[in-house]
Amino acid sequence: PSTDINADVGESFGRWRLGDDEAMLGIVTSANVACGFHAGDPLTLRRTCMAAVERGVAIGAQVGYRDLAGFGRRFVDVAAPDLTADVLYQLGALDGIARAAGGRVAYLKPHGALYNAIVTHEEQARAMVEAVLAFNRGYDAALPVLGLPGSAFLAVAEAAGLTAVREAFADRAYRGDGTLVPRSEPGAVLTDPAAAADQALRLVQAGGVDSVCVHGDSPDAVALATAVRTRLTDAGFGLGAFT
Amino acid sequence: PSTDINADVGESFGRWRLGDDEAMLGIVTSANVACGFHAGDPLTLRRTCMAAVERGVAIGAQVGYRDLAGFGRRFVDVAAPDLTADVLYQLGALDGIARAAGGRVAYLKPHGALYNAIVTHEEQARAMVEAVLAFNRGYDAALPVLGLPGSAFLAVAEAAGLTAVREAFADRAYRGDGTLVPRSEPGAVLTDPAAAADQALRLVQAGGVDSVCVHGDSPDAVALATAVRTRLTDAGFGLGAFT
Amino acid sequence: PSTDINADVGESFGRWRLGDDEAMLGIVTSANVACGFHAGDPLTLRRTCMAAVERGVAIGAQVGYRDLAGFGRRFVDVAAPDLTADVLYQLGALDGIARAAGGRVAYLKPHGALYNAIVTHEEQARAMVEAVLAFNRGYDAALPVLGLPGSAFLAVAEAAGLTAVREAFADRAYRGDGTLVPRSEPGAVLTDPAAAADQALRLVQAGGVDSVCVHGDSPDAVALATAVRTRLTDAGFGLGAFT
Amino acid sequence: PSTDINADVGESFGRWRLGDDEAMLGIVTSANVACGFHAGDPLTLRRTCMAAVERGVAIGAQVGYRDLAGFGRRFVDVAAPDLTADVLYQLGALDGIARAAGGRVAYLKPHGALYNAIVTHEEQARAMVEAVLAFNRGYDAALPVLGLPGSAFLAVAEAAGLTAVREAFADRAYRGDGTLVPRSEPGAVLTDPAAAADQALRLVQAGGVDSVCVHGDSPDAVALATAVRTRLTDAGFGLGAFT
Repeated sequence: PSTDINADVGESFGRWRLGDDEAMLGIVTSANVACGFHAGDPLTLRRTCMAAVERGVAIGAQVGYRDLAGFGRRFVDVAAPDLTADVLYQLGALDGIARAAGGRVAYLKPHGALYNAIVTHEEQARAMVEAVLAFNRGYDAALPVLGLPGSAFLAVAEAAGLTAVREAFADRAYRGDGTLVPRSEPGAVLTDPAAAADQALRLVQAGGVDSVCVHGDSPDAVALATAVRTRLTDAGFGLGAFT
Repeated sequence: PSTDINADVGESFGRWRLGDDEAMLGIVTSANVACGFHAGDPLTLRRTCMAAVERGVAIGAQVGYRDLAGFGRRFVDVAAPDLTADVLYQLGALDGIARAAGGRVAYLKPHGALYNAIVTHEEQARAMVEAVLAFNRGYDAALPVLGLPGSAFLAVAEAAGLTAVREAFADRAYRGDGTLVPRSEPGAVLTDPAAAADQALRLVQAGGVDSVCVHGDSPDAVALATAVRTRLTDAGFGLGAFT
Repeated sequence: PSTDINADVGESFGRWRLGDDEAMLGIVTSANVACGFHAGDPLTLRRTCMAAVERGVAIGAQVGYRDLAGFGRRFVDVAAPDLTADVLYQLGALDGIARAAGGRVAYLKPHGALYNAIVTHEEQARAMVEAVLAFNRGYDAALPVLGLPGSAFLAVAEAAGLTAVREAFADRAYRGDGTLVPRSEPGAVLTDPAAAADQALRLVQAGGVDSVCVHGDSPDAVALATAVRTRLTDAGFGLGAFT
Repeated sequence: PSTDINADVGESFGRWRLGDDEAMLGIVTSANVACGFHAGDPLTLRRTCMAAVERGVAIGAQVGYRDLAGFGRRFVDVAAPDLTADVLYQLGALDGIARAAGGRVAYLKPHGALYNAIVTHEEQARAMVEAVLAFNRGYDAALPVLGLPGSAFLAVAEAAGLTAVREAFADRAYRGDGTLVPRSEPGAVLTDPAAAADQALRLVQAGGVDSVCVHGDSPDAVALATAVRTRLTDAGFGLGAFT
């Protein structure tokens, strides 16, 4: 059996550095690269795409709300036509940078508050899917989309003929019903590498998961991602991008 | 004989409208569409590209400094690697939107202070050319670049194997030595449609010009552009995009 | 009897012009000046404050979400401590500019989606009031706040000891229950000057209203505002700022 | 004898953290707080001002070009009226936040490329001084300005009646003629705490210096600032804000 590990990278902005992208790109098989709306200046994106191509890591477009001050973590009530255009703009921008580096955008993953919103927000979910369909038509591509199993986003995407990739979180606590504990609650984030590795293996073995997400911006991100990767490979899982 | 008429479009931003893009797209053969850094929100760009494709007008990427407050009209001392990445980002973004509309980015034109800077600023000129070369490699494309005859930009572009398109301005006053009268001086901008049409015809007949630029954001932009187009066709020039 | 007329001004941004501020400042008694987060570059704010001081019009801080692309018309789920700091920042910025012009910020009015949100959003309403209280302490001031009668915002403000100024809209349609017809519905905006003037007079005569709002960014804004002013003065109302 | 130590603080932005402001505020006597144009979201500014007031550290407004992506380190050719308004806006914004914290803006220091530009750029230097004069009139204040000895900025400021505070850099290499080695050259920044402390003492003892600047955003910033402070007090200098 095999699976995929994804993490957010390219989230620095100008003078401000965030995460150890070099190290994370040595661990994951899919890299969710920021697209400039919630994080990621163009030079950071270019360097990140170059490093991803060099290591054979798949490049995903991590699209978000236009909100640098909020790092894309605040819901913005964007109208559907604007959201579609915003996402198409981000997809194109990152694809331009990825192609110049010898790669291409291979999938889309929504970021932060947008990711959470389209678990239930049908209109924004449809606007996102519109953008991917338009991109696919424009470049004769077939981008899959990464999202939460059971979300409106993945349902709309599949209904529109897109490939829906279901992800599980190694380092976020789950409730009994399978939804995530919100970040505002205590214990929402698992910080112990061993606990995260255990959870990752359990979720992958339970099935219904195509990719495991680890976060890249915590102090122990590299240790935690390494623990997850090791646990999965020790248990016999091959690792490779889903794309 | 034939020539091309180009104008800036897509320069609205959110609530703020600028220019009559619909009318201008009915007159010009090449449309310099803003790319979001000096103007142009993604939905505006999308609508503009759709309208351009519908009318068979060539889409150019009008790239600028990241400066909405200054509308890209202030020199910014951007380092070369940043400028290359900024331009690649803008090219990709607009191309994504153009392709979704059934078109593609067909050329690059620098905007405002960037246009003026790279008349003489060798380092920024090279950074711009780097971006176009990287885009061309990435998409197996051959974008030409539009610029001022005699500029460092066009010289560097040609030396790098790019097609350099020389433009003349219908509505900007020229000095005896062929350089433009700066906007800060009186008489820098021709507002009389007939005078602009006369100048356009004179410049095109003199040769060494591949495209005539008319500005789209003045109150009489449409009347002026119409006068230029009529004068050129009355004089027997065919009109078509240079791309 | 007397009342006040307020309108939004200072909403241009760099190259993009919006509204005829000069004309509006000749009609209204209170000017809601943008503060840079949803609109208004600093030079525009400075010129607007100078013109307001010259004409004896009261300057209000029209604070909004940090969202130029959305013109502050999209709800943003800002956390309370951020919203308080954002509003304090905007209040201080405009006050600096107003004082340099010989005036001062004399009241606060929330803009767009923020205005609408705090009709019911208790947490953001409290965050706004916190900001005004902090500003008042800092400058030994007593800013009143302008808002919708019956809103959570005005209730929280009054409970905290602030002066709550109740406004009515001349050019927005009301439902039977006194709430506004949303902009997304047909007929939400009254465009006929006479109809708006009628509504303004009716609302003021009904009582419970301290200021009448007219919008400044429609094509007929000046004609409509003039009609409202004339109708009110013809009916015997004196006009003067509530501050 | 006594002197002052100043450092830049408040330069985080949203999710991105920069520098150890808490530690630096325990060492310096004057804090150059960012004002939101090159860095510093409002909540960061508020917390920084609260911490400064608590520790009795003077609050200065560290104003910069409107350029988050470039961290204010790129020259922007802003026209004088815009620059004056931009600076007045920043001064007012920070003053609002400082007053709410029980303090006030006590001086102005230009940041980054703006600092460097007005060493020689007369027009921008005058625009800056205009802003301080307007602020002083508006609030009946007398802000001093911090700058490079011998700069056009300090000359224009003094000629206009402002108090000019001359600063020396503990951790920047000087040329024989007293100008700074540009950051782009090797050895431009002193990273050894002892060497910086030596240089600070030497410069202060030589006279003509009212404040010593230490940088807050390097990994060893706290150690270096501590060494400078200790060396100065060991040599018998009292430390206190110049304001």
